[in-house]
Amino acid sequence: MTHHPAPEWTISQWLNAPPDFGLAAMRGRVVLAGAFQMLCPGCVSGTIPQLREARALFPEQDVAVAAIHSVFEHHDANSAETLRAFLHENRITFPVGIDRADPENGGVPVTMRAYGFRGTPTLLLIDRSGQLRRQTFGHVPDMQLGAEIGALVSGSMPALGGRKS
Amino acid sequence: MTHHPAPEWTISQWLNAPPDFGLAAMRGRVVLAGAFQMLCPGCVSGTIPQLREARALFPEQDVAVAAIHSVFEHHDANSAETLRAFLHENRITFPVGIDRADPENGGVPVTMRAYGFRGTPTLLLIDRSGQLRRQTFGHVPDMQLGAEIGALVSGSMPALGGRKS
Amino acid sequence: MTHHPAPEWTISQWLNAPPDFGLAAMRGRVVLAGAFQMLCPGCVSGTIPQLREARALFPEQDVAVAAIHSVFEHHDANSAETLRAFLHENRITFPVGIDRADPENGGVPVTMRAYGFRGTPTLLLIDRSGQLRRQTFGHVPDMQLGAEIGALVSGSMPALGGRKS
Amino acid sequence: MTHHPAPEWTISQWLNAPPDFGLAAMRGRVVLAGAFQMLCPGCVSGTIPQLREARALFPEQDVAVAAIHSVFEHHDANSAETLRAFLHENRITFPVGIDRADPENGGVPVTMRAYGFRGTPTLLLIDRSGQLRRQTFGHVPDMQLGAEIGALVSGSMPALGGRKS
Repeated sequence: MTHHPAPEWTISQWLNAPPDFGLAAMRGRVVLAGAFQMLCPGCVSGTIPQLREARALFPEQDVAVAAIHSVFEHHDANSAETLRAFLHENRITFPVGIDRADPENGGVPVTMRAYGFRGTPTLLLIDRSGQLRRQTFGHVPDMQLGAEIGALVSGSMPALGGRKS
Repeated sequence: MTHHPAPEWTISQWLNAPPDFGLAAMRGRVVLAGAFQMLCPGCVSGTIPQLREARALFPEQDVAVAAIHSVFEHHDANSAETLRAFLHENRITFPVGIDRADPENGGVPVTMRAYGFRGTPTLLLIDRSGQLRRQTFGHVPDMQLGAEIGALVSGSMPALGGRKS
Repeated sequence: MTHHPAPEWTISQWLNAPPDFGLAAMRGRVVLAGAFQMLCPGCVSGTIPQLREARALFPEQDVAVAAIHSVFEHHDANSAETLRAFLHENRITFPVGIDRADPENGGVPVTMRAYGFRGTPTLLLIDRSGQLRRQTFGHVPDMQLGAEIGALVSGSMPALGGRKS
Repeated sequence: MTHHPAPEWTISQWLNAPPDFGLAAMRGRVVLAGAFQMLCPGCVSGTIPQLREARALFPEQDVAVAAIHSVFEHHDANSAETLRAFLHENRITFPVGIDRADPENGGVPVTMRAYGFRGTPTLLLIDRSGQLRRQTFGHVPDMQLGAEIGALVSGSMPALGGRKS
């Protein structure tokens, strides 16, 4: 398995973070990120709680946790106003970036297209040097995700027997 | 425990139902209804799946299942457009009424105020004759809710040992 | 669907009940019973907690809850001594009868053979008049089970859309 | 936090392993072990599935998974015969050692006393050099356990924000 640098995210607006936030600001730390839509049931019941648990578990200086709101359906229903209320109700305090809309590409936002997300939720794991180590559509079990983060924080990446993307 | 007639709901717009839908249209059937907000995590993870399960389990001619979108916070974030997308993503096909907003009463909508909902989710159980038999803020376990519906369909209401509102 | 009287259980020993306990002693009440093996994981994680919840929910005078320990494998591992410890550890206070072993029939105990249990867990629902209304191998969702008990307590049995045996 | 060498286990009989199995045979690998009793509900619903998931996730050459059956109550109910059936029913294929009984010490078995287990389940995590890195009575969340194993496999141990023993 070879890796490649994680493409920079194209964000139209950051919530819970300064306007110039992004991958560059997290460089040097392991980055766990989830691409989601707030109206996607699997995102709400699976990915959001998992990101929240990771944020509570890992030290800030070792692991950055962030989310990308990649809206590719129901665009009118997904306003920044509604997202802000969603973050409040779900007690999300880590940075959430709104993936930049791209009306010319069938409504698929820019970061989603650059990474080739197959849908939401999609989980990203990026190492300290900015290499994309995992991109998974769907759910990764807590133990496997924990093991990969624990190993990346220590400088290596395990070869695990669990589900791979 | 004495009962009283369930007050009519004041709905500004029905989704998944004709415009003149309401309690009167469901009279003669047992009515299970959940008051919710789509950005309320407990509503999404608990009440909505429970209503969906009840809809799948009980025959339409015996049990009516409906929901009331009672928005009392984040009003701007809860557009009808967003609610429509929420219903689609959560595969909700039963009637959902938007509780009529009331700007003059601290943002508490009309039906919520008439019933005295303490928040969302609130579960309502109404018998065939229109009497309100249960109004509970929070979650009612599946077995207890099933037992009460099963008994009301048969014409009586059990005295159970479970959690009461 | 026609019903038939529930065959009497053939029990070699009762725990949490007098020696002459059995279906006759429960007549007049709705009977919810689970046939289980204490080493069967699905019984421990599903049926036992469900029976315990039903016992806590329904009044004793309306609903009897009992279990039948129907051992058809690992006979030597399933002593009465071990069962007694199992009941203690799982806080089971309702009657549990040990299905009478039958060495001449491939190790299938008498009650299991009389009812034709396909394995464990098997759930039984018997009405006030002693008619067998449900016999299901595997799990019945809480809401469905609750609805059936609630209706049987009231004197009728619902036609539900849920999973049937 | 200083560490100390994990005391050798005192096992009267190994299942799923040769008779001379033990910590020495696992030296060089990270060891995840759970002390349990097969009639302890929290062990059956929590620890056993977690050990099984770890066994499926981590490579054998990096992580050894084992269990210790530390019976301190209901001794007569916990025969090796019953344990063997339990392992079969729960599809446990990793080594399980029976903690040596000690009738002279109130029924607390030898390994349990040497480690000072407060009860079952107790989770042990031992690094490649044989140092005891975690001893926890109760449950450790999957993500935290995964992170610690992932880090120990890589040679370090993280300072996490989760629940500590």
